[in-house]
Amino acid sequence: MSILVVGSVAFDTIATPSGRVNDILGGAATYFALAASYFTEVRMVAVVGEDFTSEHEAVLKDRGVDTRGIERTQGKTFRWGGQYLDNMNEAKTDFTELNVFEKFQPRIPKEYSDTHFLFLANIHPTLQSAVRLEMNGVRLTGGDTMNFWIQRTPKELAETLKLVNVLLINDTETKMLADDKNLPRAARKVIAMGPSALVVKHGAPALPIEEVKDPTGAGDSFAGGFMGYIASQGEINREVLKRALFYGGVMGSFAVERFGTERLQNLSRGEIDARFQLFRELTHLE
Amino acid sequence: MSILVVGSVAFDTIATPSGRVNDILGGAATYFALAASYFTEVRMVAVVGEDFTSEHEAVLKDRGVDTRGIERTQGKTFRWGGQYLDNMNEAKTDFTELNVFEKFQPRIPKEYSDTHFLFLANIHPTLQSAVRLEMNGVRLTGGDTMNFWIQRTPKELAETLKLVNVLLINDTETKMLADDKNLPRAARKVIAMGPSALVVKHGAPALPIEEVKDPTGAGDSFAGGFMGYIASQGEINREVLKRALFYGGVMGSFAVERFGTERLQNLSRGEIDARFQLFRELTHLE
Repeated sequence: MSILVVGSVAFDTIATPSGRVNDILGGAATYFALAASYFTEVRMVAVVGEDFTSEHEAVLKDRGVDTRGIERTQGKTFRWGGQYLDNMNEAKTDFTELNVFEKFQPRIPKEYSDTHFLFLANIHPTLQSAVRLEMNGVRLTGGDTMNFWIQRTPKELAETLKLVNVLLINDTETKMLADDKNLPRAARKVIAMGPSALVVKHGAPALPIEEVKDPTGAGDSFAGGFMGYIASQGEINREVLKRALFYGGVMGSFAVERFGTERLQNLSRGEIDARFQLFRELTHLE
Repeated sequence: MSILVVGSVAFDTIATPSGRVNDILGGAATYFALAASYFTEVRMVAVVGEDFTSEHEAVLKDRGVDTRGIERTQGKTFRWGGQYLDNMNEAKTDFTELNVFEKFQPRIPKEYSDTHFLFLANIHPTLQSAVRLEMNGVRLTGGDTMNFWIQRTPKELAETLKLVNVLLINDTETKMLADDKNLPRAARKVIAMGPSALVVKHGAPALPIEEVKDPTGAGDSFAGGFMGYIASQGEINREVLKRALFYGGVMGSFAVERFGTERLQNLSRGEIDARFQLFRELTHLE
């Protein structure tokens, strides 16, 4: 079944111990869409500037992503620069230029109104809520947020959390959102704020990766694999959710093997399932 | 089958966000022995001072640990002080008083010569090698080490590694030992140094713990659960090793729930197996 992701498209400038890249295609919605595209039909709502070329769009279209919801507007695309030179788990931001993303007002194409699943990537919680209320026919909504919104817009975020079924955030965000340093207790408090399920992402990869070249997009790729797998299943039950966590880990593990979206552009379902089986075998007891 | 652990007994002074304790029983061999005691017959070789009382010894004896190899000598028992106030994954050492441990010369009681399994806790690699060579009838030897020996006694450690079947160290130690920041590659290099198997411990708990009160001894308790389970099995195969990793995670998770050895003193096999099943269920796919 189809899934709609609403979030950022960006051009990233990234430095890691493996190298340095300038203005490569990124953004939460991009990573999510590419990862989810291996499982189900993906639709995107985002905003880009005049510097977003047909080559950039082709990265998405080649994976079958429906890009009709990507709005082009005057100005430049959102730009982010960061480095992971000291710590591969946490980026040090060098610059953030919001550009056209600053006035992002998600517009859902009419053709998207029959979408079954929704993922609200990390944007202003008021926009997340508005999209969710407009897409009131969806079966399940996943969402992300970040420390900025937790600290600056707690009331708006509280409203969003009532509209999200599965929240995917990291351990630091979970503790901050609950204002509690004890992770299991913090997780219970977050669940009490609205979501039926909470996925707490850790920095450490779920699988031993040969070479982590660029951690950018790992969390969004996890979310794409997780939500994409759920959307590909008829039923949502505990077993499907557990498998979805494994597929999330698999897609996150692929994402970090190359800079930017490179690895996510050229996977096969066979490679994905082979890594899933490896992951499964590592943790499976007779 | 029986297992012998050779390592430190200490009195620890520990501060964590949950509180502060002074001079409580600890040390790698103590944590290992208590954790392993739920699975198999455990024997200990260690050295203590005159301040090691019959109450301290009773902690071990009450769990059925054979303490005949604990040598009492003139002076004070090894003392360590540390805090985890900023980071529950890494202790900041306040003081180390080696005391009687400085001249530790492991003496294996004759009655221990039929022991089937051996664990060389973190002591000078030359002592580890000597014990291993003396116990040349063991079926399997596990070992630990630390950054201090990796940096100060690399040649001696290289000899030890040829005598150890399973090495249990953390990710930082693995990278340091291999002189390689890439963990999977570092792990392969360590394997090439001698051990047939390498268990790389991460700081993050394998299970969500309600309250981490005191991380001291988590790694040694992991090793005790891991080796203890292996010693309790007739055969050593991939499935047994995987289950042993789960039991290691279970014992580490119990250890950190209370200060010092408190939690490891009063467990039941039922509690251990219930947590094992929870752990298994969390990672098991149909």
